Parts: sequence; structure tokens; C-alpha cells
Amino acid sequence: MIKLDYTNVSVQAIGDNGLDLNQCFNEYAPKIQEIITNLNMNKDKPGSWLQWMNLGYNEETVWYVKEFAAIVDGRFDNVLVLGIGGSALGAQALSEALLKPYWNLLDKEKRDNFPRIFFLDNIDPDQITALLDILDLKKTLVNVITKSGSTAETMSQFMIIKDRLYELLGDDYRKNIVATTDKQSGILRQLANEEGYKTFVVPDDVGGRFSVFSAVGLVPLALVGLDIDEIIRGIKIMDLTLKNTDIYKNIAAQNALIHYLMDKQKGKYISVMMPYSSRLKYISDWYVQLWAESLGKEFDKAGNKVNNGPTPIKALGATDQHSQIQLYNEGKNDKVITFIRVDEFDNELNIPNIFEYTGLNYLGGKSINRLINAEADSTAVALCDYNRPNLTIHLPKISEYYLAQLLYMFEIETAIIGELYNIDAFNQPGVEQAKNYTYALMGRMGYEESAKELNEKINKNKEIMGV
Amino acid sequence: MIKLDYTNVSVQAIGDNGLDLNQCFNEYAPKIQEIITNLNMNKDKPGSWLQWMNLGYNEETVWYVKEFAAIVDGRFDNVLVLGIGGSALGAQALSEALLKPYWNLLDKEKRDNFPRIFFLDNIDPDQITALLDILDLKKTLVNVITKSGSTAETMSQFMIIKDRLYELLGDDYRKNIVATTDKQSGILRQLANEEGYKTFVVPDDVGGRFSVFSAVGLVPLALVGLDIDEIIRGIKIMDLTLKNTDIYKNIAAQNALIHYLMDKQKGKYISVMMPYSSRLKYISDWYVQLWAESLGKEFDKAGNKVNNGPTPIKALGATDQHSQIQLYNEGKNDKVITFIRVDEFDNELNIPNIFEYTGLNYLGGKSINRLINAEADSTAVALCDYNRPNLTIHLPKISEYYLAQLLYMFEIETAIIGELYNIDAFNQPGVEQAKNYTYALMGRMGYEESAKELNEKINKNKEIMGV
Repeated sequence: MIKLDYTNVSVQAIGDNGLDLNQCFNEYAPKIQEIITNLNMNKDKPGSWLQWMNLGYNEETVWYVKEFAAIVDGRFDNVLVLGIGGSALGAQALSEALLKPYWNLLDKEKRDNFPRIFFLDNIDPDQITALLDILDLKKTLVNVITKSGSTAETMSQFMIIKDRLYELLGDDYRKNIVATTDKQSGILRQLANEEGYKTFVVPDDVGGRFSVFSAVGLVPLALVGLDIDEIIRGIKIMDLTLKNTDIYKNIAAQNALIHYLMDKQKGKYISVMMPYSSRLKYISDWYVQLWAESLGKEFDKAGNKVNNGPTPIKALGATDQHSQIQLYNEGKNDKVITFIRVDEFDNELNIPNIFEYTGLNYLGGKSINRLINAEADSTAVALCDYNRPNLTIHLPKISEYYLAQLLYMFEIETAIIGELYNIDAFNQPGVEQAKNYTYALMGRMGYEESAKELNEKINKNKEIMGV
Repeated sequence: MIKLDYTNVSVQAIGDNGLDLNQCFNEYAPKIQEIITNLNMNKDKPGSWLQWMNLGYNEETVWYVKEFAAIVDGRFDNVLVLGIGGSALGAQALSEALLKPYWNLLDKEKRDNFPRIFFLDNIDPDQITALLDILDLKKTLVNVITKSGSTAETMSQFMIIKDRLYELLGDDYRKNIVATTDKQSGILRQLANEEGYKTFVVPDDVGGRFSVFSAVGLVPLALVGLDIDEIIRGIKIMDLTLKNTDIYKNIAAQNALIHYLMDKQKGKYISVMMPYSSRLKYISDWYVQLWAESLGKEFDKAGNKVNNGPTPIKALGATDQHSQIQLYNEGKNDKVITFIRVDEFDNELNIPNIFEYTGLNYLGGKSINRLINAEADSTAVALCDYNRPNLTIHLPKISEYYLAQLLYMFEIETAIIGELYNIDAFNQPGVEQAKNYTYALMGRMGYEESAKELNEKINKNKEIMGV
């Protein structure tokens, strides 16, 4: 199991910037108990947006995903995921972590004949043009993912690529498409029905950022040969563990409470996620979305204007010791830093005993594994010297099983801290206005009012620029 | 030239969260004039750490770099940069931006026969093992970069790779190495002299994070065929422009002052860098290091404890509209967001007129170029609706010339804001303690005291964990 070491947020470790953990845990024990009980009681209520808590028990979906992966096995050289935000970040984080590094550069045999995988998560004309230049679309399985079917970025990508596929393959183009979308509504579902794409369902009441363990994440992961049964096993064991309503036994609750109190009582408004493993780099991206969209809210549940939300930041150890740590140690003491430490890497790599006569002799004969973990430990202690709160999550190794535990723990933690803040962690009202403006700028029918409003603002700004 | 649009930090655009720019500019005009005058006067003073301001005029280095690139042209399939922090981030940011996207996946002809490029900026045993598995080291030019020659991460990588090169190539291994290091001192200089590596110099009084336009950045960039003359031309024109002591004419001074006042007067402690182009993604990484290490300081120049420093954050448009924008709009109003907007992409990519009978008809026939810039504009206006300050830097196109302007502008901005904060922007005392602990954990001679201290702390922490 993954473990959480919260020593370095305690008052014993960092003085006044720390928490009296025993007291905090005891004080909040009833509240935590109530929150966890309610989450588990309400998860099947329509509109609760808690259906992601059931994704470990969706054997039917897992079976269909595996069946599909088996059917297309060997037929494609590439998987191309069209999706943005929650539709891409989960599978991207897990595939980056779990596939051999530099996967797309490996020869096919070294990939055990599984396809390369690309996530087209932006609408950059140069990037898309370049990608279309290197991909043989005939040998590419396109997984287009959008619940609503109207996400402008994803659907415009899909329009470009569907058009090219049709040019190349005629009516057979549909064999290269798998759509993951709402089970009955939306444009993509309509297109899939009419044109006959293979489809998977984004389940109801599962928000994008909580969808990694649904078909949204499982399909791409299975297609590149990852073991989705092990993922499910990881969620299940973690779900069981985190049903424990005793804060002393529940790391998601501990982590949530610590971050909540650090924000509210100690002015630590920033949450840094810093894995010490390049393979885990995108786990931070996924975490940033999970926290930013779930917790950044203007109003609480009672309708009070709160402008809530710690700011999540991604960092990478040991690399960012040479970039961000100077600030974390000496800048404003406004951060909680979470390290993810890999106890056992897949490879042991030794530093040879050369240059013995130089000041580098202390490195020779040691392993680089020892070096990276020494740096993680040293950075944690140095942060304490500066009275900076930090946590360490111990990942026994990088595997489907443990990463599923990790991500599911973060999801439960997010749900719990949302309740502590008393905000709705499952909506995202703050992104609507920019969407409307974009529709207006693109000349979408029905957005003439937005267009007018926008033009007025832009003209006003032009005047201001006469500063 | 690049342009800065600061409309959306004005009081006219965002009310009380904004600045009365005319008043601010006028009030600070004398201070800014003094700062810029002093920077240019002091840049040649030993110990001023301002030698990076002269890198646009170092014709000799540029000539040697081009000569070297010409000599090795066609001899290598790969360039492998060993470096961390400032030794890697600049060239990484510029090569990611300027090379064709997916460069390392392109066939050699599509790379005009230039090598692939890899930055090994971490000490992850799995990543290094995988990289050594895909690289034919015989056909790889290794550029090891460290000023001091004792950076543990870089030198341990180098020890591993030098050892393998020697196994493969015998005494010829040295032909595959180019070292960029101090001109006379340090272990790497010593090794280079003894073993006969080709070398380039990290100039004195140029910190790692300001070294991108020295041999540190120019060598790798020239090796993959980028036009370093154009880079130099970009720095020069920007240097000339930013010598202007009139704040109304100096975008670096404007940007510095705006960020300074936003931090000090308006509680905007976070600076988000958000280019709307996937190619510019690593520009944000470079910026984060520049700001975090330069501005995150415990003490000001007068020795007062200030714990200074805005926290820089990287984001990517349009992608992170589906990740971070919810928080930026609705969370704490503690951020200044800087957009980088590319006015003209290299490619124009049209969305075909298909699915006309669906709600997607507003996209068909438009270009994806229009969509990404519509999203940038919409996000900026939406942020104003929430009274959130934001700036837009206009990049006419992605080229050596304009990116050199951009990075050099950020460097001058950083120097200016450092003076406004009255801190030393050119040291990094806060990273020393963790280095000492790492030496201790690795058993380096002379660090027995650190080892003892560290063990006491770790043991104390073990006791605490009995919480």
C-alpha cells in the first residue's frame, strides 16, 4: 500500500508553521467521520456526482474494454487520443508513468508490438500539422473523448482527422475510430450512431477530472497493453481502506485535513506536487487539474462568496531542486510541498568507480537510485530547517496497482477537502464565460449577444491602451 | 518586435484590483531610470553577475560554436545534453519551440539530417536506463554542462555515460564529448584537459539561469541546426531597445513594475506564464526557474529578513483552460496571468466543412489558428469579468529572432524587479543546505558533520511519527 508520512507538517518538526496533529485529528475526527460516511452513503444518489466512487466495481466496462483491446490487438501502430482536460490527463499521466520511458521512440518489438500513443490535447496548428505529418493515419486508432460531444478543441481536431481518414480509407475510415462519450446525448453520440463508430460510455455523474478509471482512461491504457485489472485491483483496495471513518487510519482524510488547516490556519495557499521520478511528471498535471477545478470556487454551498481554493503547482524532483527549491526554502512561507518518493525503481543503475582521484569519488560505486532518494530526503529535511511544511507519499513501486491507489486516494482526498471547505467540488461554473466568448468570436449562431458584449469590451480596452 | 499589452491590469479594466498605470509609471519613472542606468553601467563590474547583458556581443563565441557545429555536421544521429536547471532549461525551451514539433520522431531527411536532441535533466534510474537503451551512443554527441564541474546529478550521469562510451569506442570516446564548463577551474575542466575533450566556456559572472545565450545554450541549439545568428540579432535589438530609461518606452520595465506593484499593493503573489502554443510550453519552465531562483530570497540587500518572491507557475493555453482557469477565475484573486499569444503560426490549418447539420457547423470552414487565438482573447476578457489582472505578450511568430527577444526581455525584467524588491537576483543561497545533506547521505568525505546533524533530525522525526 502507498503510505503518507506527515511528520514534517507537525509543530515538532517546523514549529509555529506546523500543526499539533494529535489535537487536530482529535478535534476533526467527528467531522471526518461524518464526511466519509456521507460520501459513501450518497454516492449512488442521482446528481451527487459521486459515481466515480463506483468505478472500481464496474466489471462490465472493464470486460468490454479488454475485449475491444483484444480485437484490435496488432492492427494499429498508433493510438491517437483526442481529448482535453479530464478527457486526456488521466490516461496521459498513467501511460507516461507505466509505459517504458521514451515509449514512442522504441522499436515495435521493444513495445511488445503495442502501439505508440499520442495525446493531442491542444489546438496548436503547428503541433497538429506536425503530428499529421508523422502519423500514418491508416495505421492509427483514433480515440475521440468528450462527454458532451461539443468540446470545441476536441471536435475541431476530430473534424480535421475524420476528414483525412475518410480521404485515405473511404467508408472503412470508421474502423479507425473509437468514441468515448455520453451514453445517449450529444453530437458525438449522434455521429457515432449515424456513422457507426465503436463507442464507450462516459458514465453519468462522473466529472471529467474524476473519469480516469472509467472508459475515458481505461480504453487508451488497455490499447497500449497496460494491465487494467491491476488498476481496478488498486482502486478497490484503496476504496475499501478509505471507507474507514477513523482519521487515524485514513490517509486521504489526513491529507485533506492537513491541507485544509494549512490553508485556513497557517496561510499555506499553495500546494506543490513534486514526485521524485520523471515517469511521474504528468501525475502532477493530473493533480493540478483535480485540485484547481474542484476546489477553486467563487461561492460555497451556502451561497457565500468565498473565492476558495489553494493553488496547486507541479514540480519535479530532483530536477526542480535546481529551479524552484530556492523559492520554496526562502520565499514566502505559503506552500505545502508533497513529495512522491518511489521506494523501488524498476532499474538499479550504478555509477561506475571512475574519476577516483577527483572530488567525485563519493559518487563512484553508489547507485543513482540512492542518489535520487538521498536528494528527496535531503530536500525534505532542508525544508524543515526553513520551517516549511512538507509531506511525503511513499509509492512502493511504479505499477498499475500502486498508481491506481495513488490517484484514487487523491480523488477521495479532494472530495473530503471539498466538504471541509463546504464547496461543491464537482462543478466548474468559472469556465463558461470564456466558452461563450469563444463561440461568439467563432461566429456560432445564438451567441450574437456575447459577440456584442465582447466587442464592446475589446473596444473599451483599445481606448484604455491609449494610456 | 514583441509587444506587451498591459490593458488588463489597469484600474479601468479590472477596478480596484487594477493599477492606475499612468500614475504608477510617472511615480516610478525616476526609480526605473536609475535602475536601468545602473544595470548598464555596472554590467562589466566584476562580481556584478551582469555579464549576461553582454552575451549579444560575444562574436567570438558565436563563431566558435558555429565552427564546431560545422565540423561535427553529419557525424552524429543524436545530441545528448547532460545538465540540470539553468544548464538545460534554456536550450530545452528554445529547441522545443523552434524545432519542428515531434522532432525526435521525424525521419532524418525531415530533420534536414540534423540530429535528434535529448535533455537528460534528472537522475531517474528508469529514465536513464531507457534512454541508454534507445540511443546508439556511438552516434551520439554528449554535451555535458556544468559550470562548477561538481553538480552531482550531471556528473553522475556523465560518469555512467563516459564509462559506456569508453567501452564502446576505446580511446576515441572523447570525440563524442563536448564539455561546457568554467574556463579554468572545477573537476570537469580538469577532466577535459586531462582526457582531451572539446570544450566551451561558461563565462564568469553569468549565473546558470541567465546562461542561455552563452555557449551553454548556443552549442546544443547550433548542433540541431538552429540559426544562432538570428538569436544574437534578437538579443541585440532587444538589448538596445531596453536600454531606453523611459518607462513608457521600455516593456521590461513596465512588466517588472506591474508585477512588483501587483505583488506589493494588490496581493497578487503568483505569476502565471501561459503561452497559447504547445511549442512554447517549456518557455514557461525556463521562466519559472528564472523567477523562482532570482526573486525567492530570505533577505534583502540591506540584510532585512523579507522572504521575498512571487511564485511563478506554468500553464499552457488552450489546454489548461480545461484545468486551471476555473481556479484563476473563481479562486483567490492572487495571480497575475501572462499570456503569450502567437500572432502568426507557421502553419494554417483549416477545419473542414463537415457535420454541417450539427451544432458544430460554426467550426467548419474556419481555421484552427482562429480558434486558438479566439480562446486566448476570450480567456483574457473572461478574467477581466472576474477582475483578474492579466497581460498579453504578442509574439509576431515563433522564430529564433523573436524568442531571443522574449527571453532577453524576461531577463532584463527580472534584473529590474530584483532592484525594485532590493534583493540580490543573482545568488541562490537557499539550495546549499539540501546539497550538503545529499553529500552527507552519499558518504562524501568532509560532510561527516552534516551526516550527524541529518541523522539526528531523521531520528527525531521517527519519534514524532509515533503521533
